[in-house]
Amino acid sequence: MKPSASPVLIVGSVALDSVETPSGHVENALGGAATYAAIATSLFAPVRLVGVVGDDFPVQHTQFLEARGVDLGGLQRIEGGKTFRWKGDYLRDLNHAETHQTQLGVFESFEPHLPGEYAHTPFVFLANINPELQLKVLDAVQSPKLVVCDTMNLWINLSRDTVLKVLSRADVAVMNDGEARQLFEEDNLIRAGRELLKLGPRVGIIKKGEHGALLFSGDDIFSAPTYPIEEVVDPTGAGDSFAGALTGYLAQTGDLSLENMRRAVVYGACVASTTVEKFSLDSLAELNRDEVERRYRYVQAMSAF
Amino acid sequence: MKPSASPVLIVGSVALDSVETPSGHVENALGGAATYAAIATSLFAPVRLVGVVGDDFPVQHTQFLEARGVDLGGLQRIEGGKTFRWKGDYLRDLNHAETHQTQLGVFESFEPHLPGEYAHTPFVFLANINPELQLKVLDAVQSPKLVVCDTMNLWINLSRDTVLKVLSRADVAVMNDGEARQLFEEDNLIRAGRELLKLGPRVGIIKKGEHGALLFSGDDIFSAPTYPIEEVVDPTGAGDSFAGALTGYLAQTGDLSLENMRRAVVYGACVASTTVEKFSLDSLAELNRDEVERRYRYVQAMSAF
Repeated sequence: MKPSASPVLIVGSVALDSVETPSGHVENALGGAATYAAIATSLFAPVRLVGVVGDDFPVQHTQFLEARGVDLGGLQRIEGGKTFRWKGDYLRDLNHAETHQTQLGVFESFEPHLPGEYAHTPFVFLANINPELQLKVLDAVQSPKLVVCDTMNLWINLSRDTVLKVLSRADVAVMNDGEARQLFEEDNLIRAGRELLKLGPRVGIIKKGEHGALLFSGDDIFSAPTYPIEEVVDPTGAGDSFAGALTGYLAQTGDLSLENMRRAVVYGACVASTTVEKFSLDSLAELNRDEVERRYRYVQAMSAF
Repeated sequence: MKPSASPVLIVGSVALDSVETPSGHVENALGGAATYAAIATSLFAPVRLVGVVGDDFPVQHTQFLEARGVDLGGLQRIEGGKTFRWKGDYLRDLNHAETHQTQLGVFESFEPHLPGEYAHTPFVFLANINPELQLKVLDAVQSPKLVVCDTMNLWINLSRDTVLKVLSRADVAVMNDGEARQLFEEDNLIRAGRELLKLGPRVGIIKKGEHGALLFSGDDIFSAPTYPIEEVVDPTGAGDSFAGALTGYLAQTGDLSLENMRRAVVYGACVASTTVEKFSLDSLAELNRDEVERRYRYVQAMSAF
């Protein structure tokens, strides 16, 4: 990463995932929205992670995050606590996770704490987590330059009003197509994107998986393709790494123009395309900036006319 | 259209459609794959239409086609015969037609006949119709410069082998995402596109409705966005007008390079986006070349990064 990149504060889940897909399965593998986002962001900018794990969280995972330059000063480790665990499959549909089990563990009583300089972090990514916690972090940070926020169907169902409150305070609101259709009861994604902007954010992004993403701002629409993947092994974390890379690219460049937002969306898509090629963070862990640039240029070439 | 444009031979269904969508319904409205394709192509190049209607086919429909410069010398009118009728709805899903009734009528015993200069038409579009009839037309035309072919789930189910034979003889094979998944028993569209090329065509195109289209040729992939539509009134004919406009643009420019194929795909998407804005051919009938160019430039701007 360039020395000029601003740090990015990321709050969200850190988890141990058990996932089954048509390609195989993993048990208690490293997962969580903040984890995927942190590793994706770290390709572009320094990361400050806010989250919580139990004392069952394997030390090699914290070592992995630290080796990527992720500041874990905000990652609480609760003695006697259990790390958040998610169990699910993508057997019926690679675009849709079937949740079998969610064990909140230490997230049940989590209070985000922002140590040292964290409250003055210029870029903030509110990854998927209880929106009440996203609001607490928003209240704690001091006039950030950019707030990006993500959400998830679970919270739209359980805490719709709080989700709307968080979205209204974000600069960039990110969700996937299914979540947008659910939140706005609107099948047409162009109309859903316009509804998203009405909530307050300057920029709304609807992720469409293999079909890329749509970026909305004012009357402007950007349709981004994604890097073509012939074998999706595990879709977990694709959306988190998309938003993490997007935020990281913006933090690195410091350019919040709409033109640069477009580039950030394509970088997000390129990093997300890597995430799905292996289970857990296996593929993302191997990804370097050269490969990201190669994919970016490939997407440029495949969408030129 | 420019005077230099080559004529396009189009064979396919000419029909009377009864369609219900969330926006309303029409009874016995002008429809048919060849009809949509012919009007779309006529924006770019002269059209020679091969098909059949019964004596119940309203004269204002033939007048409409003739007014658009469509040569109806190959459109048989069977006295005492019934025009092909299709009845369906898109109530559950705007991307998927539920067929209620198909009355083949005069198509049951149709033998395509190529009058006069028709057999020497340089550009051929085999629109959706029984693949046996597509093959007969292919046998009758004399060394065309380009053959574009379309198919449909019905024929993949009923006559898979004949569909494969037609695709193997096409230069450009077009199908939608659902048809590609069905034909190749392959969920991943990138892999489906590669399978399509293996059948023989130089270029394979997979249409994805609101998500645009993918063009495959050799190792090359082009991801085309489409013009954003906030209210899809009637999706009928979108695919036919996509392929018709694509073929027309190629016939007008005479340029069969991959770069120009990419432009042709975007022109196809722009014309198809118009088709769905009203019932039947109502929107397509009003479309002029200026509006097509405006949409093309809009799609260019919305996909630039």
